[in-house]
Amino acid sequence: MTRQSSAPCAIGLDFGTASVRAVVVETQTGALRGAGAADYPHGVIDATLPGSAKRLGVDWALQHPADYLVAMESAVLAAVERSGVDRAAIVGIGVDFTSCTILPVKRDGQPLCLRSDFAAHPHAWVKLWKHHAAQPQADRIDATATARGEPFLANYGGRTSSEWLVAKTLEILEDDPAVYDAAEAIVEAGDWLVWQLTGNLVRNACAAGYKGFWTRQHGFPSTDFFAALDPRLADIHARLPGPITPPGRTAGTLTPDMARRLGLAQSTAVGAAIIDAHSAVPAAGVVTPGRMVMVMGTSTCHMLLADRYAPVEGIGGIVSDGIVEGYYGYEAGQAAVGDIFNWFVRQTGDRRRTRGEFGALEREAAAVAVGGHGLVALDWWNGNRSVLANADLSGLLVGLTLSTTRGEIYRSLMEATGYGTRRILEAFDRQRIPVTELIAVGGLAEHSPLLLEIYASITRRPIRVAGTDASALGAAMLGAVAAGEAHGGHRSLRAAAACMTHLPAAQVDPDDRASQVYDDLYREYLALHDYFGRGGNDVMLRLRRLHRAAMSRAGARDESLAETLAG
Amino acid sequence: MTRQSSAPCAIGLDFGTASVRAVVVETQTGALRGAGAADYPHGVIDATLPGSAKRLGVDWALQHPADYLVAMESAVLAAVERSGVDRAAIVGIGVDFTSCTILPVKRDGQPLCLRSDFAAHPHAWVKLWKHHAAQPQADRIDATATARGEPFLANYGGRTSSEWLVAKTLEILEDDPAVYDAAEAIVEAGDWLVWQLTGNLVRNACAAGYKGFWTRQHGFPSTDFFAALDPRLADIHARLPGPITPPGRTAGTLTPDMARRLGLAQSTAVGAAIIDAHSAVPAAGVVTPGRMVMVMGTSTCHMLLADRYAPVEGIGGIVSDGIVEGYYGYEAGQAAVGDIFNWFVRQTGDRRRTRGEFGALEREAAAVAVGGHGLVALDWWNGNRSVLANADLSGLLVGLTLSTTRGEIYRSLMEATGYGTRRILEAFDRQRIPVTELIAVGGLAEHSPLLLEIYASITRRPIRVAGTDASALGAAMLGAVAAGEAHGGHRSLRAAAACMTHLPAAQVDPDDRASQVYDDLYREYLALHDYFGRGGNDVMLRLRRLHRAAMSRAGARDESLAETLAG
Repeated sequence: MTRQSSAPCAIGLDFGTASVRAVVVETQTGALRGAGAADYPHGVIDATLPGSAKRLGVDWALQHPADYLVAMESAVLAAVERSGVDRAAIVGIGVDFTSCTILPVKRDGQPLCLRSDFAAHPHAWVKLWKHHAAQPQADRIDATATARGEPFLANYGGRTSSEWLVAKTLEILEDDPAVYDAAEAIVEAGDWLVWQLTGNLVRNACAAGYKGFWTRQHGFPSTDFFAALDPRLADIHARLPGPITPPGRTAGTLTPDMARRLGLAQSTAVGAAIIDAHSAVPAAGVVTPGRMVMVMGTSTCHMLLADRYAPVEGIGGIVSDGIVEGYYGYEAGQAAVGDIFNWFVRQTGDRRRTRGEFGALEREAAAVAVGGHGLVALDWWNGNRSVLANADLSGLLVGLTLSTTRGEIYRSLMEATGYGTRRILEAFDRQRIPVTELIAVGGLAEHSPLLLEIYASITRRPIRVAGTDASALGAAMLGAVAAGEAHGGHRSLRAAAACMTHLPAAQVDPDDRASQVYDDLYREYLALHDYFGRGGNDVMLRLRRLHRAAMSRAGARDESLAETLAG
Repeated sequence: MTRQSSAPCAIGLDFGTASVRAVVVETQTGALRGAGAADYPHGVIDATLPGSAKRLGVDWALQHPADYLVAMESAVLAAVERSGVDRAAIVGIGVDFTSCTILPVKRDGQPLCLRSDFAAHPHAWVKLWKHHAAQPQADRIDATATARGEPFLANYGGRTSSEWLVAKTLEILEDDPAVYDAAEAIVEAGDWLVWQLTGNLVRNACAAGYKGFWTRQHGFPSTDFFAALDPRLADIHARLPGPITPPGRTAGTLTPDMARRLGLAQSTAVGAAIIDAHSAVPAAGVVTPGRMVMVMGTSTCHMLLADRYAPVEGIGGIVSDGIVEGYYGYEAGQAAVGDIFNWFVRQTGDRRRTRGEFGALEREAAAVAVGGHGLVALDWWNGNRSVLANADLSGLLVGLTLSTTRGEIYRSLMEATGYGTRRILEAFDRQRIPVTELIAVGGLAEHSPLLLEIYASITRRPIRVAGTDASALGAAMLGAVAAGEAHGGHRSLRAAAACMTHLPAAQVDPDDRASQVYDDLYREYLALHDYFGRGGNDVMLRLRRLHRAAMSRAGARDESLAETLAG
């Protein structure tokens, strides 16, 4: 391909769970010029450590930090090559990354796991977002924060996750204090990546806020809180160095070594990182309050900007400057959406051709008249992570008859996730934070037109679908902002969105007759939601206890059998 | 086969929905000597009348009366031939029949439908038990009986069925008065069959009581009641002639013509008929109070004898002399049992090999620890026909999670039908009518050992399984009673049961540890049962209304489309 003088471009780097994707996007038009992707050589490390036979626990999920650099180099070189863009026209780089994905490093950024003295320590490696071994630590964090009345807890709806920074750090400290002692910094992988690109450690406010208890007003929680968790944690602030910066603010320019490896100019600006899901918000053109972005996949993440703080019931996170500088970023979530549909296909489908079953079920569901199935479901197959914030709630189906069909059940499950979304919207309504339009992103949004129709009529709001590659586009927008207006980029995300986002004109509108029937069904959903979710009948919690008791009896039987056989 | 002098035998005739089965059984041992079966040539008539293009309605189900005689002749000849029994040793014949299956006849027993002037009248044919077109009539019967405080209503738990005698008769009167006017008698097909065998019209107390509002104390309801339903019905008593007799009492001996056709002696005694399900009660050796017979198939029918009358909640029928002379026969029912399992297999299984799926599901269900699935279901897929007596209730499943398996759901559905049975037993308990043991009969009882284990532990009662062919054996016992002790038969059903019933010694016992866990789950079932069944939340009834409204909107759309296309 011949080089030619080009319009200014930014690179967006989207670091996912298994691979990184790079896109080259024109900053003034949003046109995609080229893309490349590369898998991480070690993927998700969940069996044994690299170069070792050491077995990991069942809830473990690690990654190899060198993978990020190797894969990034391949992806960037491919994207730029395919774009045909003059390298000098690439003015900025933005980064989105899974989170909370953290690693312990030395002061100069060297990961502990890459040093020979710590290579055999599992806790020295990158802990991926879905490493779930720190649940006991998360439980203690919630108890301690609740007992002390820590104000940060309200920003997370009163409950924190085992996936987050402090739980994972406490796990390191308790299980392998030598790693904690040697760690001169514990950083988000997205921030570490920006550090490698620029030589500067700049922590992004998005990950720090949504996953690290950081607030613009108070910073990280107090030393007293950490000491109450574990006295050895009193020095944790020293291990969380670096300024905290809204996503897209310039972190620096490429180091000479990185410029050489990526074939780009040293003057290329790099922006502070953002969490991958949150990157879809600016990509969907949402840079001001009023429109909600729903990232719809196995679960759904709802994100919204507002100019004030309000304690929305069951919120997942509220972070000032967390998504777009100058606004509070609100995040809510449904713990299972696509996962429920996957579950249903596994139960009902021909297990040899799952892909075809989704299409068949969606066709059957589409043929059902609104209200015609006589079913209502509660969408709590993975607990309720929003208004009720209770992981031990479970799914419910009511209205089953001998003539109920698979397609009808499937439709009722789709609808139930729509009612769950409506309930979240109402929590915002009650705090007078308006949501006038929904922007859907992600695999479910792209592949299930019926789901969008259902959501539009249930919520009585129009829905538009933002294009594929939303997270990568959002990262490129951050790169354009990092470069700045004077260098062919933009002075703000708002300005970037005006040029780079192109939502399709087509939208899915509510159907008023369907909405009226859904109003009736939603009333039923709400009554069941409150009865089973707010103490009217705690049968779901008792069933979980019965389940756990049966499992532990079965476990004891297995152990005793093993002893008998061994004896 | 060579003829030989034989021990005395009785023939049992079991008239089912599609065929008749004949068995030859030794009266002193219960040994089965031979069996034969024959399909009804016209089967179930639900499309067009024989010899006519006249279309029947969707809820219609008719039969051809001549089929019963033709098929009986084949089945009896085959059974006797195969038995090798000396024809002179056959001392009695008993008959069980589906019910309520009725036909209008002339005074001499000639069916109206076999006369040329009525052959084209659908209402002149045999209306099979599952003819469901008389629902509007049943609704009016319930309303009228309730308004007038008719005492018979309490014998049926306050609700009667569209399948029964008066609803079907009122349907004839309203839709085709000429048939009603020409009908000199309206008789149960079982009684008509005995009439054909003996020349005597003897109505059995079982069908008259369970399906015809007849009580030993008051006979049929009063003329005032019938006149309130429809003034033209005031003369119905004249159309219900003949004595009413407990099953098995001698109705007479074979007519010369029948003796010739069946190759039996004219002296062969014939007993008054019984309903097919109820015939399983004496066959299971239940001829005194205390043990309950469960006929377990697509639905379950529970039958029990008691020496006093008590208004058991949600009872299906209480009839004095209705099953065994001298006792009140109690009947309760679960509207769907096997039907729920069939439904689940249809939703989840490979649709090409349903048979194998049952075995696979039962194995998966058996591997689940008691309480381990964390699920509770309400077994109302076909409404609740027992304690709550509400056909518009529907099924519910609670406790679903992403790790719930097909086998776990299947087990929870089995358990739910067990809780439904326990609730019925408790309704008897509350009236101090004891049930000490369960006898299971029917396809489900024979083919699902897991179901019996679950029922035994849930109800804390031992269960024995009576053999196959229970209804036919019960009919043979009635034949032995009709013949009488002096002729090689028996003087009572109790005496017949002592000789002819052989329950297996093996029984399924409750497992105390399982029972304890089921007690917890049953408490959850009961709380849901009362919440959804007694007005705590009428969501199920509202969902049915939404379903019907959606169906009628869809119907209106179809009609309007048809008009548009026609216009």
